[in-house]
Amino acid sequence: MDWTAEIGAAAARIAPHVRRTPVVSAEFAGRRVEIKLEQMQHTGSFKARGAFNTLLAGDVPAAGVVAASGGNHGAAVAHAARSLGHPARVYVPEMAGPGKIALIRATGAELCVVPGAYANAFEAARAHEAETGAMQIHAYDAPATVAGQGACMAEWEAQGLDADTVLIAVGGGGLIAGALGWLGGRRKVVAVEPQNCAALHAALAAGAPVDVEVSGVAANALGARRIGDICFGLARDVTSVTVEDAAITAAQTALWDGLRQLVEPAGATALAALLSGAYAPAKGEKVAVLVCGGNVARSPLG
Amino acid sequence: MDWTAEIGAAAARIAPHVRRTPVVSAEFAGRRVEIKLEQMQHTGSFKARGAFNTLLAGDVPAAGVVAASGGNHGAAVAHAARSLGHPARVYVPEMAGPGKIALIRATGAELCVVPGAYANAFEAARAHEAETGAMQIHAYDAPATVAGQGACMAEWEAQGLDADTVLIAVGGGGLIAGALGWLGGRRKVVAVEPQNCAALHAALAAGAPVDVEVSGVAANALGARRIGDICFGLARDVTSVTVEDAAITAAQTALWDGLRQLVEPAGATALAALLSGAYAPAKGEKVAVLVCGGNVARSPLG
Repeated sequence: MDWTAEIGAAAARIAPHVRRTPVVSAEFAGRRVEIKLEQMQHTGSFKARGAFNTLLAGDVPAAGVVAASGGNHGAAVAHAARSLGHPARVYVPEMAGPGKIALIRATGAELCVVPGAYANAFEAARAHEAETGAMQIHAYDAPATVAGQGACMAEWEAQGLDADTVLIAVGGGGLIAGALGWLGGRRKVVAVEPQNCAALHAALAAGAPVDVEVSGVAANALGARRIGDICFGLARDVTSVTVEDAAITAAQTALWDGLRQLVEPAGATALAALLSGAYAPAKGEKVAVLVCGGNVARSPLG
Repeated sequence: MDWTAEIGAAAARIAPHVRRTPVVSAEFAGRRVEIKLEQMQHTGSFKARGAFNTLLAGDVPAAGVVAASGGNHGAAVAHAARSLGHPARVYVPEMAGPGKIALIRATGAELCVVPGAYANAFEAARAHEAETGAMQIHAYDAPATVAGQGACMAEWEAQGLDADTVLIAVGGGGLIAGALGWLGGRRKVVAVEPQNCAALHAALAAGAPVDVEVSGVAANALGARRIGDICFGLARDVTSVTVEDAAITAAQTALWDGLRQLVEPAGATALAALLSGAYAPAKGEKVAVLVCGGNVARSPLG
């Protein structure tokens, strides 16, 4: 796969439909950190990029699209489908929580809540795909999804990203795969996972994707049971670190206190690696942090 | 006063101490709106600009600085004073509320909570100034304060502001005075006030600054009893509109739903004019909105 070409094409394709999210420089852990506020993307996470790219790159059948999602991907697919005039069905695991379920419902998608975790919702989505011919939009392990997410890093570089190293949170690996595909080794990438949602970390240790148990504060966004094959293929040389839930919560507080940015646990996970010392940059190493999602469990406005 | 020179000097003076706040383009009320997220400034509002400028432009006495504030200015003065190594005392009216009082306390300033509204706190601050010789940092009606706040608009233009018209919320008028001083009529400026904190609107109607009653959701930030003389001098030709509290609350919701930005009522007041129709741009008129503060009453993270 020529990721540079795929991601460049995706970036051009989705540009009219996605938001150019802002970048800010702030001080964390005693150093300057460049932060991309991708939680300001439509529907509150980077997922809108992959969803739009998938819909725009292929022929959408009359049966529309189907997706399984811990919440953010489902909201993004529902939003993209409605924007482009396609029907959408989204399977969501109960663990997504009421906030994310309400977010998807608000987009007007047909919503099916499935008992259990992400993998259970994915099975149900596959069954619907087989039955109806709807187009499956995978949350992370499909080339069009990865290429769309990669457009986030392409945009960041176009905005003048000034960093040796970029910290990115990992669930199923779509976002980091896109970043790695775009960067092609030009910058160091640090993969950050919650200790209890560490599918990439486990895969790198085992030498192949393996199933892991998922739980904790970020599980509805980062709780993929197994890392995507595309991500694993691109991430073999990545620096992989894990963080405790308490470090994620502390990073959420730091983002509010320092920047008045309220983000979900997954959105604070990359910064948590820096604040907790799970990733300790070298002296003079310029670091950047991608804030990937802002869909907190309950609306902060009641 | 040569405001262009004063504000240009202020911008250079404070640059090492303030954050270059990001700008984002979003869709509100069916049109593209350019938004500056100044609530991401240190201590959560634009007030840090005026505070740093005042401290850096003058000689600070050994007695340090004193300020009266509905909350945001006090936090900014306390932060700037600590950053530069000066003692600070801040008088806050009870109506500031526990969130803002806690914010000032966290900066390490000496804090005095005064019964009543902003004007009562200001009287107490004046008494302290007379007694100790501390430097008074006025929240809005002093040239160094206005010049510092004007640096926000200078920065926005340097970031490529693409708008015919800028909507700005008004309390005592320091921020809008700085903007008007910098712009010198090059763009249209719309002053937005809550109906129940409308000191500028009343002054323009009366032909001179007059006392008004203040109340409502944004009163702890926009509740100046009388518009500042500097602002009144600069704002005679401004377009002045008012919005109801319900419109402000709706704009807060719109900023969360559309951009995942949680802001205080004052921070949503300028956008409220657009969403409510209190200000209706002409066809093709490009509008921009300054989000000025993010210090919500209670931490959204508990």
